[in-house]
Amino acid sequence: MKILVQKFGGTSVGTLERIELCAKRVIKALEKGYKPVVVSSAMAGETDSLIELAKKVHPRPPEREMDTLLAVGEQKAIALFAMTLNKLGYPAVSLCGWQVPIITDNVHTKARIRKIGISRLLSLIEEGYIPVVAGFQGVTEDWEITTLGRGGSDTTAVALAAALKADCEINTDVPGVFTADPRIVPNAKKIKKISYEEMLELASLGAKVMQIRSVEFAAKYNVRIHVRSTFSEEEGTWIVPEDEVMEKVAVRGITVDTKETRFTVVRVPDKPGIAAEIFKALGDAHIVVDMIVQNVSHEGYTDMSFTVNKTDADKAEEIVKKIAQKIGAKEVVRDDKVAKISIVGIGMKSAYGVAGRMFDILARNGINIKAISTSEIKISCLIDEKYAELAVRALHEEFIEEMEEFETINGKNKE
Amino acid sequence: MKILVQKFGGTSVGTLERIELCAKRVIKALEKGYKPVVVSSAMAGETDSLIELAKKVHPRPPEREMDTLLAVGEQKAIALFAMTLNKLGYPAVSLCGWQVPIITDNVHTKARIRKIGISRLLSLIEEGYIPVVAGFQGVTEDWEITTLGRGGSDTTAVALAAALKADCEINTDVPGVFTADPRIVPNAKKIKKISYEEMLELASLGAKVMQIRSVEFAAKYNVRIHVRSTFSEEEGTWIVPEDEVMEKVAVRGITVDTKETRFTVVRVPDKPGIAAEIFKALGDAHIVVDMIVQNVSHEGYTDMSFTVNKTDADKAEEIVKKIAQKIGAKEVVRDDKVAKISIVGIGMKSAYGVAGRMFDILARNGINIKAISTSEIKISCLIDEKYAELAVRALHEEFIEEMEEFETINGKNKE
Repeated sequence: MKILVQKFGGTSVGTLERIELCAKRVIKALEKGYKPVVVSSAMAGETDSLIELAKKVHPRPPEREMDTLLAVGEQKAIALFAMTLNKLGYPAVSLCGWQVPIITDNVHTKARIRKIGISRLLSLIEEGYIPVVAGFQGVTEDWEITTLGRGGSDTTAVALAAALKADCEINTDVPGVFTADPRIVPNAKKIKKISYEEMLELASLGAKVMQIRSVEFAAKYNVRIHVRSTFSEEEGTWIVPEDEVMEKVAVRGITVDTKETRFTVVRVPDKPGIAAEIFKALGDAHIVVDMIVQNVSHEGYTDMSFTVNKTDADKAEEIVKKIAQKIGAKEVVRDDKVAKISIVGIGMKSAYGVAGRMFDILARNGINIKAISTSEIKISCLIDEKYAELAVRALHEEFIEEMEEFETINGKNKE
Repeated sequence: MKILVQKFGGTSVGTLERIELCAKRVIKALEKGYKPVVVSSAMAGETDSLIELAKKVHPRPPEREMDTLLAVGEQKAIALFAMTLNKLGYPAVSLCGWQVPIITDNVHTKARIRKIGISRLLSLIEEGYIPVVAGFQGVTEDWEITTLGRGGSDTTAVALAAALKADCEINTDVPGVFTADPRIVPNAKKIKKISYEEMLELASLGAKVMQIRSVEFAAKYNVRIHVRSTFSEEEGTWIVPEDEVMEKVAVRGITVDTKETRFTVVRVPDKPGIAAEIFKALGDAHIVVDMIVQNVSHEGYTDMSFTVNKTDADKAEEIVKKIAQKIGAKEVVRDDKVAKISIVGIGMKSAYGVAGRMFDILARNGINIKAISTSEIKISCLIDEKYAELAVRALHEEFIEEMEEFETINGKNKE
């Protein structure tokens, strides 16, 4: 029995007409010999309007009740989805999270899945029904309704696929994952296959496509994901284990992030505990720090730079200025006009010269690098915001559009 | 522990402002020393718009999916209700039908309650929470969502009250049950106490107030019901066991029904099986027959009259004409312009002369009686539709407004 979990996002089920389109895609999978298990989000806009309603009642609605309220959106969608399949002549049965059951911990509004019962799903499939499961919802061991956090339907789909040992199809409103944001780089290409790790590092590209937590989940259980457009028959992007990505190009994609602010604490005494003091204070204030760069020290002093999300910048500035004074740093410099450009690819692990090549491309285009940070499969450079698009286009042209040429060089380098 | 089940109908929870009003009524009960258990309907209009949506998808949506869809309305309402209580400082917890659980049979869209778990409710109450239960919903032993049919929230409330051995308060948009329709009889009075039997016979008055099935349920388990307006502090009408209705007046209320059509099958051969043939055919066509009147026969022939709902009249006419021809009746006469006037009261059981007095009042007002039918606590007369309002007013004036005088007569009659 070849089960296929097919997930449809909020835009895909946004109207009754669109639900019918989705249902037809399910029927197509059935005709190809798959046993489909549908996972549906709430119809586009429903969740937002429920949240708005709750906020009118209570500035901070109890999270338990919030979950009960929000679960309504998916319940409505699955009933309509199942009705549509029935109308088209295919017996279908909707299941809420508690009916599957999808058992979670009891952290309301951002619960984690603990286990999934599959016997009911399997017997429905054997009896010839198409199960239509509510995304986003779960139930605790104590019969409390929980939800999995924004975009949680992706996690539902991946978890079901893991439990059923099936592939997972994510039907959404974009055709797949691209090598760069097509609005910036018109030549951006759809990626055919990408590893979980690459997908995670390409978060800023991928987040528009699917919830990052669900990719982590897929990586953990080796669930193969096919992200594709609900509104087209084209193949999308497969997100798969690393060993399945045959073509290990050095650079899979290029991202740009202009939502960060850089701070530099100038002339910090270079002694143990200083970094800890700064970042502990930021952590206590629930500020997420992204890049952290510290150079070698000169004469017992160093400069320390880091970036935070722009929305946290004012709070961060206040905190850091206080600490800077306390530890005797010279000053704190704030720079809001920065962009973080990253290149990502598992090929990097075994390819020499990728970083140097990146710096060279930026230099040739007259772009100064303000900070560098690297991981195994990602290199990020902080640059002046006004060069962001230019940088992405230049990097895309040389790393991706001239890929064949690069791969030869890469091959040579590997010798 | 003095538990009080407080049910709020759709209009009562129709807006967030109204939900707050309802929540305040719950808090008032709490302050009076009650432990309230709230039952809420869906916000006014929700259920209808969900049905409309389903009809757009499927001309006859599968009933199982219909239940899953409709259950959404109450789930939304209870979450908002519980949030409101929390905002006002009173910890509350919403419970869907399956969370209570309210176990039903598996007849989707009109399920019957089989049993109710009360341990979760009791421990919530003991921990200081106000449980807010979704009306209208249940769950089968197989974890299928069911609904109890239109107005099913009343049944939920009465069943919970029965299980918890509590009184049941029905908060609605009318102040109680009246002796007649106040639009016809401006002097109609609110009834203070009425027996289950009277309430059932006054269906046409009572149906605007609460679901008839829930009254049957209350009668079976002796649940005392207090029907009152959500928007007023006044006492409403208590629906109670017969032995609690101290004041056994002959006539508790007067109803009029103009939604029926009368048929008379003229000169029917008076032999066994004829009546059965007519009414079996109507039953097979799912036509509900109300009054049936047959007089003594003359020379082997009799006339047989019955009434059906106007919406079924055309279908009934076709069926009856066929059978009339077959059994050799003379003709079938149809009369659409009839009204059924009924007087109801448990006092009738022990009071002589009530029927005669009713006929006399009608005669004095020049109203001809076309058919009569009686039960232990109800007398119905079919009259010309144009006299309907006149008849109700005249009967109300003499039986209800002049009640004291009547009771003296009644007392005399009983000697």
